[in-house]
Amino acid sequence: MKLKEGGVTAPQGFSAAAARAGLRKSQRPDIALILSSADCACAAVFTSNELKAACIHVTARHLNRSGGKLRCVVVNSGNANALTGRQGIAAAEAMCTEAAKALKIRGELVAVASTGIIGIQLPLDKVIRGIREAAGKLSTSISAGSRAAEAILTTDTCRKEYAIETSLSDGRRITIGGMTKGSGMIAPRMKGLHATTLTFVTTDANIERNYLQRCLEEATEETYNMITVDGDMSTNDCIIVMANGLAGGPLIRHDEEFERALHKVMSELARMVAMDGEGETRLISVEIVNAKDREEARRAALAVAGSNLVKCAIFGGDPNVGRIASAIGASGVHVNFSRLDIDICGEPAVKGGLIDMDREKVAKLMKRREIEIVANLHAGRHAARALGSDLSYDYVRINSAYST
Amino acid sequence: MKLKEGGVTAPQGFSAAAARAGLRKSQRPDIALILSSADCACAAVFTSNELKAACIHVTARHLNRSGGKLRCVVVNSGNANALTGRQGIAAAEAMCTEAAKALKIRGELVAVASTGIIGIQLPLDKVIRGIREAAGKLSTSISAGSRAAEAILTTDTCRKEYAIETSLSDGRRITIGGMTKGSGMIAPRMKGLHATTLTFVTTDANIERNYLQRCLEEATEETYNMITVDGDMSTNDCIIVMANGLAGGPLIRHDEEFERALHKVMSELARMVAMDGEGETRLISVEIVNAKDREEARRAALAVAGSNLVKCAIFGGDPNVGRIASAIGASGVHVNFSRLDIDICGEPAVKGGLIDMDREKVAKLMKRREIEIVANLHAGRHAARALGSDLSYDYVRINSAYST
Repeated sequence: MKLKEGGVTAPQGFSAAAARAGLRKSQRPDIALILSSADCACAAVFTSNELKAACIHVTARHLNRSGGKLRCVVVNSGNANALTGRQGIAAAEAMCTEAAKALKIRGELVAVASTGIIGIQLPLDKVIRGIREAAGKLSTSISAGSRAAEAILTTDTCRKEYAIETSLSDGRRITIGGMTKGSGMIAPRMKGLHATTLTFVTTDANIERNYLQRCLEEATEETYNMITVDGDMSTNDCIIVMANGLAGGPLIRHDEEFERALHKVMSELARMVAMDGEGETRLISVEIVNAKDREEARRAALAVAGSNLVKCAIFGGDPNVGRIASAIGASGVHVNFSRLDIDICGEPAVKGGLIDMDREKVAKLMKRREIEIVANLHAGRHAARALGSDLSYDYVRINSAYST
Repeated sequence: MKLKEGGVTAPQGFSAAAARAGLRKSQRPDIALILSSADCACAAVFTSNELKAACIHVTARHLNRSGGKLRCVVVNSGNANALTGRQGIAAAEAMCTEAAKALKIRGELVAVASTGIIGIQLPLDKVIRGIREAAGKLSTSISAGSRAAEAILTTDTCRKEYAIETSLSDGRRITIGGMTKGSGMIAPRMKGLHATTLTFVTTDANIERNYLQRCLEEATEETYNMITVDGDMSTNDCIIVMANGLAGGPLIRHDEEFERALHKVMSELARMVAMDGEGETRLISVEIVNAKDREEARRAALAVAGSNLVKCAIFGGDPNVGRIASAIGASGVHVNFSRLDIDICGEPAVKGGLIDMDREKVAKLMKRREIEIVANLHAGRHAARALGSDLSYDYVRINSAYST
């Protein structure tokens, strides 16, 4: 596996563009397009929020009609197009129709994604002008991918792209690139074909669609579904993977190197989202080991990474390990508390169910940018890792004045 | 029902006291005693956190041995005595033994409760001196009850007491009094006899113990278990109700007036906890109506009251009603979003699944001390109410510098 420059335009045959439709006050672009020069096998996962944005309904319908094929994704930031009723659905369809017309492809080959404030109707005229402008600027350059990655941001403080090149088991070279966004309302629990972090992954590998979907679902469970910024699940979360096959070779129905590479790209992108959590000053990495089963390991890891009290303690650089133990207990998993061990940044903090640490040393280690918590439950053989951000004054500032 | 002055010493036969053992830096008392002059039928609910403090284990064991009878509760603040292993259990037992000796009663008639930092061994010498001092100051006065109510506080900004007098169905006058504490780590989910809000309720009614337990569990479900400050369930939550029968009359096995009165006392005490949530500037009251069943109504209400994004919006006075709808959707309950209605402070905000509000008017109403949210799911006939506090800069300040 080799790191490559860029994101969604790193694999062969993918172009991208951005435009500014004026959906928000800032001067940043707010419309992104990704286009493949050939039909793509597509896999997708969407939010499990019962309130799904219009774009989720429309994209699911298009994938259904096209038999899981896609050529293009059109994305807007600044408006979630959720809680917008039939008018919202019509607007999301219109976005696809407009992109299809400009790109001379069928409408069902276009997916749509939105992120921003909930409950406001899209200013469709502006959006359509933006889509037309973007369609005229499509380019396979690395910088075009980067401009698209900028256009999908909301409260994010930085662009999030990643790409790698790798050899499949038959020696064929393929590239996987991706872009993502997400800073607040981050607690994605995405489920197969029916996840507001938006993530778009492109590859020139020639992958069979059902296998691609299985690879995506498995990777989502271990990456995006294990991050939490604020515990609030969005109405708009989605990950779309497009594979255009331009690397050539026979159709891949199973390849462990592909799975590893996809997992690596999604893992790096998810980590960028957790590191850019709203108001984040420190990344929290929680590893639960020796849990009874995988589900309990996942639940306990997310409970610790998601605890407001743990997040505040880490923001304050306070080795309040009792809060970590309490969060594990509150998650309802099987724990032998008389044997519980917890390490913070590699230093023992709890041993055999009792706090036993060099408090000054741990407090010093907690000034690092990334705080690693490892908890050994002594209840089985399963492990899981969750990533979260700390809870700072800035999180409160950003979210007490978002819509106004 | 008639409001009475005071708290746990309002009913006949109950005395209380406080002392300062020096478990924390402030000059406030940190040891409280409540004593009944006659044996009490006792009901209790405890935290469902898998990590239970030593006091929870010891109190459950004593109630088991005594057949649900109690004379005394001894409480310390400043130290949770949780994650303290065998030494912690021995310390909790020693607290009961010491109180029993000073009061000349059997040890199993004493319950113990603790609140404060997790993972630090109790300084037992100090605690024992405090218990002895308090035992020498026991008084049935209203002010003695108030001092005990002060001694159980941690980050609370005010004492929390409530008492009422009422007539049972046979005309007999009884009194129910209570005291509570709790400000952070508040998301109690307490279950029958095996919930860090500490709550102590006293009554002179002559109540059969099993009936009292059922009354307590039902009232807990609708009061304490429906409040959330920060979503972090404590290791120490407990509610203990003591009924000494001194009001006389036959043993009560069913009395709706008693149930109403107990519910009233617990509802007022729980409300005080939610109103004094750490850093709280506004109380959030969420009522879900027309849910499919009671459990879904409860889950949706708690999801909205517990959402960090909703809490931040209310702190900022921002009518970002989309976050409320998203939190309902994320809770996974059945909702017909095309018919969803949401009112904020009595004003329509969402009608038929679309945002439709006088934004300026709602923003003005959101300057109130209490923000009432009513969401109609149009999915059934069940309702529930949850109470929460907003998420402010002060919550972060208090919790990023707690243990240091």
